[in-house]
Amino acid sequence: MDSLISDLLLQRLAEQHDDKLYKRLYNAIRICILDGSLKPESRIPASRDLAKMLALSRNTVLTVYEQLLAEGYLLTRKGSGTFVAQTLPDSYLSSDSIALNGEQSSQPVEFSKRGINLLKHASASPKQWGAFIPGVPDVTAFPHHLFSKIQGRISRRPSPLELTYGSQGGSPELRHALVDHLRVARSVRCDPEQILITEGIHQAIDLITRMLCNPKDHVWLEEPGYWGIRNVLRINDMTICPMPVDKAGLVLPKNVEKNPRLIIVTPSHQYPLGAVMSLRRRQRLLALAAKAGSWIVEDDYDSEFRFSGQPIPALQGLVKDAPVIYIGTFSKTLYPALRLGYIVLPKPLMNELKSAHSELYRGGHLLIQKALGQFIEEGHYAAHIRRMRLLYARRRAFLSDLIVLHLGEWALSQFNSNAGLHLILNLPDSCDDRLICQKAGEQGVLVRPLSSYYMQQKKTRKGLIMGFACVAEELMEDAFMQLLGIIKAHLPPDKVSTVR
Amino acid sequence: MDSLISDLLLQRLAEQHDDKLYKRLYNAIRICILDGSLKPESRIPASRDLAKMLALSRNTVLTVYEQLLAEGYLLTRKGSGTFVAQTLPDSYLSSDSIALNGEQSSQPVEFSKRGINLLKHASASPKQWGAFIPGVPDVTAFPHHLFSKIQGRISRRPSPLELTYGSQGGSPELRHALVDHLRVARSVRCDPEQILITEGIHQAIDLITRMLCNPKDHVWLEEPGYWGIRNVLRINDMTICPMPVDKAGLVLPKNVEKNPRLIIVTPSHQYPLGAVMSLRRRQRLLALAAKAGSWIVEDDYDSEFRFSGQPIPALQGLVKDAPVIYIGTFSKTLYPALRLGYIVLPKPLMNELKSAHSELYRGGHLLIQKALGQFIEEGHYAAHIRRMRLLYARRRAFLSDLIVLHLGEWALSQFNSNAGLHLILNLPDSCDDRLICQKAGEQGVLVRPLSSYYMQQKKTRKGLIMGFACVAEELMEDAFMQLLGIIKAHLPPDKVSTVR
Repeated sequence: MDSLISDLLLQRLAEQHDDKLYKRLYNAIRICILDGSLKPESRIPASRDLAKMLALSRNTVLTVYEQLLAEGYLLTRKGSGTFVAQTLPDSYLSSDSIALNGEQSSQPVEFSKRGINLLKHASASPKQWGAFIPGVPDVTAFPHHLFSKIQGRISRRPSPLELTYGSQGGSPELRHALVDHLRVARSVRCDPEQILITEGIHQAIDLITRMLCNPKDHVWLEEPGYWGIRNVLRINDMTICPMPVDKAGLVLPKNVEKNPRLIIVTPSHQYPLGAVMSLRRRQRLLALAAKAGSWIVEDDYDSEFRFSGQPIPALQGLVKDAPVIYIGTFSKTLYPALRLGYIVLPKPLMNELKSAHSELYRGGHLLIQKALGQFIEEGHYAAHIRRMRLLYARRRAFLSDLIVLHLGEWALSQFNSNAGLHLILNLPDSCDDRLICQKAGEQGVLVRPLSSYYMQQKKTRKGLIMGFACVAEELMEDAFMQLLGIIKAHLPPDKVSTVR
Repeated sequence: MDSLISDLLLQRLAEQHDDKLYKRLYNAIRICILDGSLKPESRIPASRDLAKMLALSRNTVLTVYEQLLAEGYLLTRKGSGTFVAQTLPDSYLSSDSIALNGEQSSQPVEFSKRGINLLKHASASPKQWGAFIPGVPDVTAFPHHLFSKIQGRISRRPSPLELTYGSQGGSPELRHALVDHLRVARSVRCDPEQILITEGIHQAIDLITRMLCNPKDHVWLEEPGYWGIRNVLRINDMTICPMPVDKAGLVLPKNVEKNPRLIIVTPSHQYPLGAVMSLRRRQRLLALAAKAGSWIVEDDYDSEFRFSGQPIPALQGLVKDAPVIYIGTFSKTLYPALRLGYIVLPKPLMNELKSAHSELYRGGHLLIQKALGQFIEEGHYAAHIRRMRLLYARRRAFLSDLIVLHLGEWALSQFNSNAGLHLILNLPDSCDDRLICQKAGEQGVLVRPLSSYYMQQKKTRKGLIMGFACVAEELMEDAFMQLLGIIKAHLPPDKVSTVR
């Protein structure tokens, strides 16, 4: 009997393709039990015997037996050895015996209306690294070794409270550190309890929209603007009102026909065109929001990277108790996969939005939040931003020079402020910027069409959004020359003549 | 002039309370600039002079000047020293000058309908550690040192692709490791591309509901059931249909009046009563879902912890291409703050739900996902579960014994299977289980009322949900005796006599 079982197992072992021997043996025995080759109550060989028959070490066999015992496939009886346990009825485990009249395979796949709307506008690119992917910082410049040391220090002796479900808006250390940082760097005024740590801008917008807006409520969005926010609003069934921008930021309408529930703006650095909202416009926006009962959502996504001129304080700190919900992210200052961001909540919303966050997402990630708190507290965050500011300023200048040198001044967008992680290469209105991006993508050069940042396709400007932050200067020229070839092939004749 | 400035700074320095000297000086100078004590274009002392006057090291002063220069508060002119930069108009930075007619402070706070509904049912407890919090594993038993070593190894040389936005469902290493683990431990059948890594059960239910359900669609939920899932369904405006459970799991109705879009079940270990869904019931459920065009969502939240009897394979693997969306979490097997879980997607939904996940949440957390993948691959995950299974079995037995010893057999719920992280202490129908929990909470003993797991308050059973997993045996008795005193005070006379 034992040799029959060992033959059976040898055969099943040969069918297993796992790296580890003990896993192959484990699977082989388990499959024999599940498919009935080893019947319930049958005795299996002693570990020493099986090891000899299969030419394996006894330890391997013991490990496998132990796991199968723990999982209830085997059982031992004192003095009489190891047996296959009474499993559930055969029919239970052998699926083919269950007839469902084939109905389940014809299950029609119907997505929800909001789901279909989202999928129609899906814009996230599977490629997120390389020249000139917009919105991605130089993640290789992050001090991983240092951060890893801080993390290691924290992870060795975590408190149980840092390992269970979070609540109260996130790690206290990170919230305290952020209050100081935001006050100094962004003139944001808040207490630690106003801060809610999020997974990033998307989660922040999602939470705010769900808690403050009913379906079909009006939300003002800058046009052009970030596709990601539009998609979060779509899944929440908002009525999106695209608002034009000029060089002073979002243009306020003379008459407000329907009060917006939210006004989402990027006043420090309009995305993607780059305008800075003027003080006058800011004051008018605050007055309009107060009158209309709207909440302003200030998306301060990359404002740390301003390469010349004064720092531009946040709208949030301009007026005490302004109806401003300030949102920020570490995706641009550190790296995107960190998935950490924050909301500075106005006090009247504070408790409710923190509670809703716990209900919807449960809290957590407290160890990495604490590590980041210490990273900020010890001055590494400010130092990293300073270093990146110099690096990105240089790369920005390098790319601007390439554009002007090869295409001429006309190709550099007039709104481009000396800031951020991307700039815009202007194209004539007759150009198909999506086609250029598609062709560039086929050659491995990642750029995004400016026209895809517009909701109203009739009013688009044409251009290429080019991220310079994550591209070393020595790689930039080659990638640019490749792109230039594609651009040239799609330019109207009067512009081709300017190309060098 | 220099000495005037140094007097001013000395005074401001005294008002700063930061640990670090350079931060105090930085803040002192910055505040002087912002409040106008240091006017634009005024020259500030050379670093050497200021260091002497303030009795600080020159390096400290240099560090601070450098930061203020980088942030644009100061500027240097060749040969003539360091100056305060032209800042934005005073009125910009001094908020009080901006009049909004006081309107913003009277901003009425109105939450959305779904938001109000969510807040009304908010159930997440701010206390998440201690005897007898349900649903929390023993997070102190996790091998933090080992995991931290794996993380350190990975974090030292991450690839840029692991640091940028994720897509494709999460870290390939983790998805591959999960396929093997789920096949062996749970009889789940899938390919790596069917796996989508999530933040846990909440995000999984949120994504599935948004993508597959229109507002008001019917969703069947077990009654009693997990409050967290109800709240995610509420924010998505679902019609929740509470379905009774018996000892074979969710009771299927004879006639289905309106086809449910989703049927959410916990077949391996009904939450919170503990029933295991019978094979017969599973077959009928699959047939009903196929006929009604419903998706079954199998929530397999704590099925790894079964302390006796056979392992209970997942519904997902019972029939090929069954309309089952399988969801799981590492919150119970490892620790909740990890915020990692997974969905095993049926192939017809796979690409769309992965795409929607990228659009709504962006991907990320790839380093910790990779670390977990290696942790599983190297056998540590299975080993940890085996260790915890022994530990929890012991604690469960200890708590059961306490209950039976002091209250009698009647107090141990009949559905309690020998599994999971909690058990139910039965109370007579006349007892106010919420009041008992509230009183216990005031004494620091955390238990949840069984009645709060019901939507229909008229049909509730009474009892206490008691988590035993995170309570060491030596602490259990004291906490239990404290609880017993409170229970006794609320029992009807016929039951009090049974208390020892």
